[in-house]
Amino acid sequence: MKLLEDRIRQDGIVIGDDILKVDNFLNHQMDPQLFEAMAKEWKRLFEGADINKILTIEASGIGIACIAGLEFGCPVVFGKKSRSRNTPEDVYSAEVRSFTRGTVNTVTVSKKYLGPQDRVLVIDDFMATGEASEGLIRIVKEAGATLCGVGIAIEKAFQDGGDKLRSEGIRVESLARIASMNEKDGITFK
Amino acid sequence: MKLLEDRIRQDGIVIGDDILKVDNFLNHQMDPQLFEAMAKEWKRLFEGADINKILTIEASGIGIACIAGLEFGCPVVFGKKSRSRNTPEDVYSAEVRSFTRGTVNTVTVSKKYLGPQDRVLVIDDFMATGEASEGLIRIVKEAGATLCGVGIAIEKAFQDGGDKLRSEGIRVESLARIASMNEKDGITFK
Repeated sequence: MKLLEDRIRQDGIVIGDDILKVDNFLNHQMDPQLFEAMAKEWKRLFEGADINKILTIEASGIGIACIAGLEFGCPVVFGKKSRSRNTPEDVYSAEVRSFTRGTVNTVTVSKKYLGPQDRVLVIDDFMATGEASEGLIRIVKEAGATLCGVGIAIEKAFQDGGDKLRSEGIRVESLARIASMNEKDGITFK
Repeated sequence: MKLLEDRIRQDGIVIGDDILKVDNFLNHQMDPQLFEAMAKEWKRLFEGADINKILTIEASGIGIACIAGLEFGCPVVFGKKSRSRNTPEDVYSAEVRSFTRGTVNTVTVSKKYLGPQDRVLVIDDFMATGEASEGLIRIVKEAGATLCGVGIAIEKAFQDGGDKLRSEGIRVESLARIASMNEKDGITFK
């Protein structure tokens, strides 16, 4: 998606060869107009998939997912992160490791808000090794819901998360796919 | 706002006489169409205030604030919560106590995304004792930005947060104001 790639080139800050800071428009300060354009693109890509629920993870997925929900006309549920491994009986849960932070979080979703009647689009701001999306997908399966696909804003395609999911037959639509990046040469998109 | 009051009556669950669970449509599962109607109402209420930035706090403020940002046509910044009192130099910070959870969080906002040129609307899902809004307001002042007002989805008007801010001359627009509630009699709005 050219609009997003242009914005990443304009405002993204590359640190080393694997950190991309986009907190100017994506995950600290957020640009709702850009999110609307992204939502319209996912709507076009997933036309006919009959999506009736969007699932994301706190915190930085929520803004993008909510505006996507406005476009798809469906509710949005966000997985809550906690450090506790003790989860109550009325939630689905999955453990999600963060490689950047070196932490393990338990992500929970109330059983009230996800079930066999749901056709789910998983939305997140970033995909690298894919741990967060995999956690949400495990929750979709545990709920007996149908996974229609995964919508990602920025995929670090030089890491294996996206292709691992694609090889399992999961539809992953990333709006910007970074082939490589470093401080000297900037960013190359796929 | 009748639409929100009706939704609270329909889907809200009162526990004891001071807990209201609205995680069906507001802060776990979210209804983007409802958020859009709320955003339009804040837009009408703050007409002419020249708001050019929305400030909220993670996690449950983000969805409402993003859709408000779409309506106001401005960027949205969310304050990040952490347990650490050590904050880097490039952020504004405020300590926020949560009475419901008994915790103290440090809320931080990057200095890059808030400054004297900003006319700020603070948005949050709930107001009870007003600690979260007060923390965000301290950050607005520290940044030298102009506070145009505070937009709250649900105010527990039987607690003093909203009126404390109003008595300081701050404009607080809560879309539903709960006068009282309990399990037996349900909810009375102001």
